[in-house]
Amino acid sequence: MRFLTTIFTMCIMIGCGILPHSVTAQESKQMAAKQFILSPIGSVQKENGRTTLLLNKDVEPALRGLDEFSHVWVFWWFGRNDIQKKRAVLQVHPRGNRENPLTGVFACRAPVRPNLIALTLCRVISVKDNVIEIDKIDAFADTPILDLKPYIPSNDSAKASVPDWLKNRK
Amino acid sequence: MRFLTTIFTMCIMIGCGILPHSVTAQESKQMAAKQFILSPIGSVQKENGRTTLLLNKDVEPALRGLDEFSHVWVFWWFGRNDIQKKRAVLQVHPRGNRENPLTGVFACRAPVRPNLIALTLCRVISVKDNVIEIDKIDAFADTPILDLKPYIPSNDSAKASVPDWLKNRK
Repeated sequence: MRFLTTIFTMCIMIGCGILPHSVTAQESKQMAAKQFILSPIGSVQKENGRTTLLLNKDVEPALRGLDEFSHVWVFWWFGRNDIQKKRAVLQVHPRGNRENPLTGVFACRAPVRPNLIALTLCRVISVKDNVIEIDKIDAFADTPILDLKPYIPSNDSAKASVPDWLKNRK
Repeated sequence: MRFLTTIFTMCIMIGCGILPHSVTAQESKQMAAKQFILSPIGSVQKENGRTTLLLNKDVEPALRGLDEFSHVWVFWWFGRNDIQKKRAVLQVHPRGNRENPLTGVFACRAPVRPNLIALTLCRVISVKDNVIEIDKIDAFADTPILDLKPYIPSNDSAKASVPDWLKNRK
């Protein structure tokens, strides 16, 4: 009797769209793709006036040739904001200044956003083993690094316009 | 009796290092920080010669003000390479051309890398509701989008040098 009740309840739920009637391989793949996992490749170090990117030893081979570039994009994680509440913020006054207009987080570089990826262009001073010395970075010491990409001016620059609030920085 | 057996087994496991004897708040935080979770904010659409970024409706407020920028950084996921084997590749011949020197994935823009983040600078044509029309992007249709940031020339450009293999693109 309990078995029949369960079957009956499931049929009602399917009818109401509470349970999917069937999940195709395609749908299943789409659902599985809803989250992506990142692991840090290293961390930012700041000591004795030097700023370095200390990479995990196991990814050192991935640095081959980086010393031939003058600049590198550093992708890092806004780890201090990794709480649900901050990842849900969608609009801010840039730089916390209420004189700047209320702006979407995709239209400014706020450290709160749904996916906490940060991007900074840095000058490469040296690359030795698993350590890259850079000029500076707007990340705290021990910040996790996610990725590095070389800066390629022909891909990565444009004659561009920006809004007034950004021209007169506040 | 079963309770005592469980306690005894746990003591043995702790002794053998199978279970941690204790986890400090600091250690717990470090362990928790070993992985970061991303969820797509939308996807790339290509239809009738138009390329658009279709954002999820719930993040639409985050676009406020983006129409005042001429260019946007699109962060997307190299989803077709999201298998352990490809995420373990650390060196490649750029663009699959063996005439290009063997190069670390952090010294080129290869679509294989430990964290499969892709970055493309796009020209904004229009922003309407949750849809951004752009000029073009080197991502397939339906590619998941992770983040958008405005292009700010003063932060995002530099007088830079690149290696010879990149000057004479092969």
